[in-house]
Amino acid sequence: MITRRGLMLVLSSPSGAGKTSIARSLLTRDKEINMSVSATTRPRRPGEAEGKDYYFVDEEKFKIDINKGLFLEYARVFDHYYGTPLGLVQKLLSSGCDVLFDIDWQGTQQIKAKARDDLVSIFVLPPSTAELEKRLITRAQDSAEVVAGRMARAADEMSHYPEYDYIIVNHDLDQSIDAVHTILKAERLRRSRQASLTEFMKQLREGCS
Amino acid sequence: MITRRGLMLVLSSPSGAGKTSIARSLLTRDKEINMSVSATTRPRRPGEAEGKDYYFVDEEKFKIDINKGLFLEYARVFDHYYGTPLGLVQKLLSSGCDVLFDIDWQGTQQIKAKARDDLVSIFVLPPSTAELEKRLITRAQDSAEVVAGRMARAADEMSHYPEYDYIIVNHDLDQSIDAVHTILKAERLRRSRQASLTEFMKQLREGCS
Repeated sequence: MITRRGLMLVLSSPSGAGKTSIARSLLTRDKEINMSVSATTRPRRPGEAEGKDYYFVDEEKFKIDINKGLFLEYARVFDHYYGTPLGLVQKLLSSGCDVLFDIDWQGTQQIKAKARDDLVSIFVLPPSTAELEKRLITRAQDSAEVVAGRMARAADEMSHYPEYDYIIVNHDLDQSIDAVHTILKAERLRRSRQASLTEFMKQLREGCS
Repeated sequence: MITRRGLMLVLSSPSGAGKTSIARSLLTRDKEINMSVSATTRPRRPGEAEGKDYYFVDEEKFKIDINKGLFLEYARVFDHYYGTPLGLVQKLLSSGCDVLFDIDWQGTQQIKAKARDDLVSIFVLPPSTAELEKRLITRAQDSAEVVAGRMARAADEMSHYPEYDYIIVNHDLDQSIDAVHTILKAERLRRSRQASLTEFMKQLREGCS
């Protein structure tokens, strides 16, 4: 049996396109992929577990780790840092496990720059502007201005679709989950991910002579 | 709805690894992929239909077409020419149909040189040398020499596995058919094959402002 190297599956989309529901279902369906756990400097909230929801670290340690190049990607959002520790991901990939990321185009670009060969990126699109707007009106009292702001941010995120390997238009949630799962299963069969293939081929070919 | 450009799915393997059975099942399961029909200069045999089994052409016409660059790939096998007419394949791809090829590494290399972006290549391997040998002994009276010759040709074909995108080890026929079908469905979702994506994105983003 050929052992394989894991891959990093990135799902990006404008907020409201259904990415989070797809990610949650994929984790339930497929036991060989794990959600990436980020480190953050923001305080722990009630109910959050260390190492499950986040790794909680202080700002000084986070900045030292940035300088040491220990993050696969990171970002500052308002007053806090969020980032993916490189070591944990590399350990998972080497042991043949896949890692799922629910991140935006900026995080995806950082991962691409560091580990192109292990990255598979999918961009999830809403089926239409009308459908996106419907999903972005989260409460009846949302003002037109608030919704317009969300739509503008969605348009900005969507302008980065050419940077992704695969495109899924989320007409139907179940079909979109199937599509992401299909991409994951196919990408596992890439020659470049078959870790012990050279050894297997050597045995196979030597046996022929 | 986004229209898509078709792709060329190439299956290669040493003889005896199960490629032909996989190809036949895939065509039954998936109606959007068609078998490529080759042109040949060899005489038509009883029961063969023009345009279904082969396009039967004379050698003079075949050679003129080679010089005009009208073949996607071609080869001379003993006294006859075999080749894939480029025009037919291009027509299928443009109309969003996929084309399946059951060819060796040399044909695959020729297609790669002409149309890399539309090509998805899969190499099918036998699970072990013992299993390959079992499948290559086609008749009880096959001599050790005949079998050894087949094994040597298999080893030679297998040396080209690094030129392929995906590797499938054929432990179980049904699982291998599933794997090829999964690769086909995933590759259809590649951004580069979504023919009308630019237009779709333009509408989506304009609608946001």
